[in-house]
Amino acid sequence: MKNVLVLHGPNLNLLGERQPEVYGSMTLEEIDRRLVLEGDQLGVKVRTFQSNHEGALIDQLHEARNWAAGILINPGGLTHSSISLRDAIAGVGLPTIEVHLSNIYARESFRRRSRIAEVCVGSITGLGWRGYLLGLSALVDQISTPAN
Amino acid sequence: MKNVLVLHGPNLNLLGERQPEVYGSMTLEEIDRRLVLEGDQLGVKVRTFQSNHEGALIDQLHEARNWAAGILINPGGLTHSSISLRDAIAGVGLPTIEVHLSNIYARESFRRRSRIAEVCVGSITGLGWRGYLLGLSALVDQISTPAN
Amino acid sequence: MKNVLVLHGPNLNLLGERQPEVYGSMTLEEIDRRLVLEGDQLGVKVRTFQSNHEGALIDQLHEARNWAAGILINPGGLTHSSISLRDAIAGVGLPTIEVHLSNIYARESFRRRSRIAEVCVGSITGLGWRGYLLGLSALVDQISTPAN
Amino acid sequence: MKNVLVLHGPNLNLLGERQPEVYGSMTLEEIDRRLVLEGDQLGVKVRTFQSNHEGALIDQLHEARNWAAGILINPGGLTHSSISLRDAIAGVGLPTIEVHLSNIYARESFRRRSRIAEVCVGSITGLGWRGYLLGLSALVDQISTPAN
Amino acid sequence: MKNVLVLHGPNLNLLGERQPEVYGSMTLEEIDRRLVLEGDQLGVKVRTFQSNHEGALIDQLHEARNWAAGILINPGGLTHSSISLRDAIAGVGLPTIEVHLSNIYARESFRRRSRIAEVCVGSITGLGWRGYLLGLSALVDQISTPAN
Amino acid sequence: MKNVLVLHGPNLNLLGERQPEVYGSMTLEEIDRRLVLEGDQLGVKVRTFQSNHEGALIDQLHEARNWAAGILINPGGLTHSSISLRDAIAGVGLPTIEVHLSNIYARESFRRRSRIAEVCVGSITGLGWRGYLLGLSALVDQISTPAN
Amino acid sequence: MKNVLVLHGPNLNLLGERQPEVYGSMTLEEIDRRLVLEGDQLGVKVRTFQSNHEGALIDQLHEARNWAAGILINPGGLTHSSISLRDAIAGVGLPTIEVHLSNIYARESFRRRSRIAEVCVGSITGLGWRGYLLGLSALVDQISTPAN
Amino acid sequence: MKNVLVLHGPNLNLLGERQPEVYGSMTLEEIDRRLVLEGDQLGVKVRTFQSNHEGALIDQLHEARNWAAGILINPGGLTHSSISLRDAIAGVGLPTIEVHLSNIYARESFRRRSRIAEVCVGSITGLGWRGYLLGLSALVDQISTPAN
Amino acid sequence: MKNVLVLHGPNLNLLGERQPEVYGSMTLEEIDRRLVLEGDQLGVKVRTFQSNHEGALIDQLHEARNWAAGILINPGGLTHSSISLRDAIAGVGLPTIEVHLSNIYARESFRRRSRIAEVCVGSITGLGWRGYLLGLSALVDQISTPAN
Amino acid sequence: MKNVLVLHGPNLNLLGERQPEVYGSMTLEEIDRRLVLEGDQLGVKVRTFQSNHEGALIDQLHEARNWAAGILINPGGLTHSSISLRDAIAGVGLPTIEVHLSNIYARESFRRRSRIAEVCVGSITGLGWRGYLLGLSALVDQISTPAN
Amino acid sequence: MKNVLVLHGPNLNLLGERQPEVYGSMTLEEIDRRLVLEGDQLGVKVRTFQSNHEGALIDQLHEARNWAAGILINPGGLTHSSISLRDAIAGVGLPTIEVHLSNIYARESFRRRSRIAEVCVGSITGLGWRGYLLGLSALVDQISTPAN
Amino acid sequence: MKNVLVLHGPNLNLLGERQPEVYGSMTLEEIDRRLVLEGDQLGVKVRTFQSNHEGALIDQLHEARNWAAGILINPGGLTHSSISLRDAIAGVGLPTIEVHLSNIYARESFRRRSRIAEVCVGSITGLGWRGYLLGLSALVDQISTPAN
Repeated sequence: MKNVLVLHGPNLNLLGERQPEVYGSMTLEEIDRRLVLEGDQLGVKVRTFQSNHEGALIDQLHEARNWAAGILINPGGLTHSSISLRDAIAGVGLPTIEVHLSNIYARESFRRRSRIAEVCVGSITGLGWRGYLLGLSALVDQISTPAN
Repeated sequence: MKNVLVLHGPNLNLLGERQPEVYGSMTLEEIDRRLVLEGDQLGVKVRTFQSNHEGALIDQLHEARNWAAGILINPGGLTHSSISLRDAIAGVGLPTIEVHLSNIYARESFRRRSRIAEVCVGSITGLGWRGYLLGLSALVDQISTPAN
Repeated sequence: MKNVLVLHGPNLNLLGERQPEVYGSMTLEEIDRRLVLEGDQLGVKVRTFQSNHEGALIDQLHEARNWAAGILINPGGLTHSSISLRDAIAGVGLPTIEVHLSNIYARESFRRRSRIAEVCVGSITGLGWRGYLLGLSALVDQISTPAN
Repeated sequence: MKNVLVLHGPNLNLLGERQPEVYGSMTLEEIDRRLVLEGDQLGVKVRTFQSNHEGALIDQLHEARNWAAGILINPGGLTHSSISLRDAIAGVGLPTIEVHLSNIYARESFRRRSRIAEVCVGSITGLGWRGYLLGLSALVDQISTPAN
Repeated sequence: MKNVLVLHGPNLNLLGERQPEVYGSMTLEEIDRRLVLEGDQLGVKVRTFQSNHEGALIDQLHEARNWAAGILINPGGLTHSSISLRDAIAGVGLPTIEVHLSNIYARESFRRRSRIAEVCVGSITGLGWRGYLLGLSALVDQISTPAN
Repeated sequence: MKNVLVLHGPNLNLLGERQPEVYGSMTLEEIDRRLVLEGDQLGVKVRTFQSNHEGALIDQLHEARNWAAGILINPGGLTHSSISLRDAIAGVGLPTIEVHLSNIYARESFRRRSRIAEVCVGSITGLGWRGYLLGLSALVDQISTPAN
Repeated sequence: MKNVLVLHGPNLNLLGERQPEVYGSMTLEEIDRRLVLEGDQLGVKVRTFQSNHEGALIDQLHEARNWAAGILINPGGLTHSSISLRDAIAGVGLPTIEVHLSNIYARESFRRRSRIAEVCVGSITGLGWRGYLLGLSALVDQISTPAN
Repeated sequence: MKNVLVLHGPNLNLLGERQPEVYGSMTLEEIDRRLVLEGDQLGVKVRTFQSNHEGALIDQLHEARNWAAGILINPGGLTHSSISLRDAIAGVGLPTIEVHLSNIYARESFRRRSRIAEVCVGSITGLGWRGYLLGLSALVDQISTPAN
Repeated sequence: MKNVLVLHGPNLNLLGERQPEVYGSMTLEEIDRRLVLEGDQLGVKVRTFQSNHEGALIDQLHEARNWAAGILINPGGLTHSSISLRDAIAGVGLPTIEVHLSNIYARESFRRRSRIAEVCVGSITGLGWRGYLLGLSALVDQISTPAN
Repeated sequence: MKNVLVLHGPNLNLLGERQPEVYGSMTLEEIDRRLVLEGDQLGVKVRTFQSNHEGALIDQLHEARNWAAGILINPGGLTHSSISLRDAIAGVGLPTIEVHLSNIYARESFRRRSRIAEVCVGSITGLGWRGYLLGLSALVDQISTPAN
Repeated sequence: MKNVLVLHGPNLNLLGERQPEVYGSMTLEEIDRRLVLEGDQLGVKVRTFQSNHEGALIDQLHEARNWAAGILINPGGLTHSSISLRDAIAGVGLPTIEVHLSNIYARESFRRRSRIAEVCVGSITGLGWRGYLLGLSALVDQISTPAN
Repeated sequence: MKNVLVLHGPNLNLLGERQPEVYGSMTLEEIDRRLVLEGDQLGVKVRTFQSNHEGALIDQLHEARNWAAGILINPGGLTHSSISLRDAIAGVGLPTIEVHLSNIYARESFRRRSRIAEVCVGSITGLGWRGYLLGLSALVDQISTPAN
């Protein structure tokens, strides 16, 4: 059975409470619970991790190369500026899919550039918590397909 | 039973033949067939339309306001320049999800700006033909949810 | 009796229905009817044409050089990107006045640049359907004045 | 009977003399005379004011909130740089229409940005002295229409 | 006893009336009255001056070098474009503190650049009329401290 | 015997009539006639097609992959904005040479960027109708040379 | 009695030692001591926190929503790049005032853009350690005023 | 005997006192006195005028078209932003030479663009008060030469 | 019999050896030989000159005004930066055609701007050594046609 | 005997494993071992530290002012965005040399700007692990030279 | 008796012949003759030098540090791009005045930036051959004044 | 025994004399002497060449492909603008290392872009004359390592 790491970046621990008109009203715990269940359905084991520390997210990515087959990541505000996170994804080399709850391309201009997108397989934006489940499904496809 | 319009923009009729290392090897006919089947699963009726003419795509969008409950669109090269297509989506007012086969945010810089994204609910990029199925699933969620 | 061509670009067929808080609640048919009546008052024959196809608008412009003395145009979303439409106006060489229902200079930044303005005599923006009537009046002045 | 203030910015006192190939050969006195007559036709009282001093124009705008129902303004060279004039129009809150004799969008690039346009109802450019009369007509429509 | 000049730029005479949701509902007269009282508390004599004329503000700045020990200035719309005002502050050489009622860094992009900030000791923005009193307090500290 | 498709974009049907000081006085029919003759000389069969519709040009390009060995294209105003045309050329994969009658690099700045150039073998600009004949000659060299 | 959190970003622990000509010679401990005393005067309880870790500052902000009524923050070098810190302030939703010891608008160009300013009530820059006391005073006004 | 107008813009009345390391230590009165004497030498009558008011400078320029044969102008801080002053010079149509005491092209970047230069015959920068005398000499050559 | 100067800029002496995948494998000597032969065919005398020194190329251009009727130039790396070379072509005033072996518009962004194009009749890019022969043919047409 | 701190930023712990075609195949442990040996040769004591946490790197820099005479730093992805790290280097005031394994000026455009370079003595890029040894040698020269 | 070096950059040898409507009809020989005579008047010995080679101009500048007291330079097209020439002027350290025959600030945008201006005392533009004489006069003032 | 070419660009012959606070006080002769000695130590023969002529440097580079195994280059002011020099390095294809005496990334913004860096193995900046010796050492490593 393959493993998948789900990473949540800064401020995502506030989900359900922070600006629900932008980010929806479901808590991160609930999203994580659904991801684990969906993983069971899809035949993968899901581990989730949230941190407000860029360094802690990078450490988790590095460790994941020993046990995970793919990454699902919502880098939060680091999306737009963290070259270190980008380099970590590229360095680890696992297939990675980016998820954003809100449609970052319809918000402030500084949110329209993702430093992460270029090292990911693809991205899902604006579909709320369902985007995580779709992303997990796509990731499982990705890691079970031989080439492309 | 609700209806969904799937629009494919310029050059997508070449799918399976044109640059398969970028766009995959499945033909558009096959993708359309799968979308119809998936629609059956999800309880919606899917109609698909492809054109290389911006005007024809806009005409279809206008008509859809009489029969469809949502739009799934891959605008192809029009993504980056067509304000008319954008205005059509905004004018028609149906929930719309954008799909791109390739990861447009990891290609040439002129492909990183989507004129369409701002008037869509969300977007799915880089996940190949599976992105259409995920997009359809998200659209069905969207049009069957009361508010958000 | 001189002839005038009134061209309406993409999405203007939705007038009265599409985003009335931006574009007003009068339909295009009603505007066209008023333009014909106003033309009668001013002693010119008005023909109107709407299309969502850039090419069809250009075709009409080309034909107009055989029968029209001036052009009134609302290019819709093509205003901001169509160099072909611009070249058609310049190539045909008839005096042309640009009309916009909304104040395009007070909206999104990409709407503030008109590719068409440089080849027109002048423009009227933000005055709703009345802008068409004022534009027709200015055009008639223009085509009946010897030089300037 | 409603009152309208017509403001002419810097250098417009040179009209008829200064660069007639750009600005036409009619003097400002003659334009003002025609505006007063046209106002009589339209049932409004027109007062006109020209100054080369930004501050004097702002002072007039401030006073106008006590007696005028709308503003017609050609800000001349201040169009492109005066945030103070813009703030005065927004602060006074009267419906305002911008007029330019020449087609500013077909001249030097620094003339293509109007700081004023965003706080005006609309604008008329490139139609010479007739633009003032059309603008007055539009303004009277504007101030006699209940909402829009 | 030291003297302080408080300068208010264009449109600040409309305070309390103009866009109160942005600028608050206290009038300039009331703010000036409070500044004089606060000055009495802090042991300085406060003179205030408002004008919509850039030149008049510069004239006041020039005269202040004969009698004032510091300047408190809210340049209004001139903040973003007046190099002459900037040069006047630099030329006069008195310690100057910039005050803005609204948070100019959270508004339109053209309001985010202050031409004045670089020649001031510091600035206070977004704190409404209280910002003036805080600025006066800081200025008095500044002019009574030997060096820094 | 190999086939070559010559595509003419928007407004080129006006050749000989439209702005002859920029585009020369030879008509498109005459140019096409000379291209066919020159093709006979060079041993290729030339088919020509003009349209003001981006979509129709793309449709022709798609069909050409079934019968043509190379493309000669003057995309007119689409040169500078059409990513769909660019994608069509790249997707079809035939060797393509770009021709412009006028020297686009010596005109307005927006004409200096060609979206098409990057997917063409090369380009010929500023040499009038002779540029087409030179381009045809270069294309024939290209399609008869084994590699390069 | 209300509580206030004072946050100091990276390198502020070096205050008094690091570049005193830019940042002054008072230590952070001394500033913190004065803030606590000033808080006592103003009737609020002040807690201070410094870290060189972006994540630790965000964690503190998140916890503050359980006990604090307002935030005073000097984000140091994070001011110009941290979207995560910005999102944390916006997510927590407490009134926040930004303080900078030096006049960031008179230094290197990359220091002139604050990512934080847009989610703060206002800011105080260039007034050295006194800026903290003024900021605390403004914050207390803010949290004791009903609306604004 | 021909007349020449010498215009000094904002802050030049501070000459000799303001930042002498940048602008030199000679007063404006002394420079004016030398210009009058030099004019006597060159056979022209020199009138000088200084104002901190843009409008007053424009008024003087307008009047000068009745009595002067040429203009020597140091627009001070208006150099970089005043389109109205530029339009006044172009509108009046007299040969104009621009003088700057300091080398504006070796100072802050916003000083490197002159709005005025394009409507002047030429300019002299960085040569201190002597630049005025050289400029007067060049202007006299200019107005006494038939064509060029 | 007319004369033509063919100028080759820096590094073109390495042709055939330097990066043959970009520039082809024919040597400059061979290209020159073919140009002379082609000139014989076309009835012009061809002289060729290569230098790595900008100044030497300019000297040759200057001398050519005494004996040549037209110029064919491949400015190499000077294309993108040499204003002196541009001024030399404009100053000499002979009809000039620009040739580039590779498609400079499909390479690094700094190669997409030609300083030379604006003073040339036209250009030929991306067609390898054949581009020189086509350019010579076009130049001979140019210098034997009366006007255009 | 003097001490030197060698700091390695995010992802450098992956060296030897991550993208060896870019970063080489030697591990960080091996590089650190060689640096200590080289330090022995040069008469300095080398301590090394790697972290994926910006804050931890800053903490180390702050402590180093108590025991180190110079810094050798490879900031990894923080090079391009961390103003806090830059401020830490400037604040600590020790001579610092920047090392990059790959040639950052020949990679993606966002890697071409170093926020750190301006506060360092110099930098060494593109020379792989040998760059560290050269950098250490240069740093030892730097800290043993009196001035420069 | 002091010596002055007058340097003329590329293409200035064509003066009198090249584009006389831009550069005037006097030859360089005549200008040089007048400069020598004017030098005699002013008590300095003038040596002149023209080259189309950047390197030769730099060589002359280097040698001039052994015999000249000041430099008068018209760098021609090198004005806008040559950092080497700029560094040579700065390195030699002699007072230098820049002269341009035409008003470079009223021509193409790429001519508006002078790389040289920042290392010169000042500049004279747009005054034709008389600008050289004025520049020589200013240079003599400069090199005979003790400080400034 | 392998050979190495050391190239010094414009103005480096002034070393030791020109701006010693920026470039140090050692002469070029002395640096060259040390490079030759260091070469002896490292087992390579060093030849040095300085010129103020871009063309002469390119000529030397071309010749070096016949006798040298690597290049050490300090291109001086050509670093930032010479595409010809860049093309020469790429064309010659020898491993090349760039050296700058001063830290070009901490100086004027136009010095921060190196046209040369992208075609070099790496670069050493800001380490004064020692940078040359370090560069030579790195170059010798480079040319004696089989691959990398």
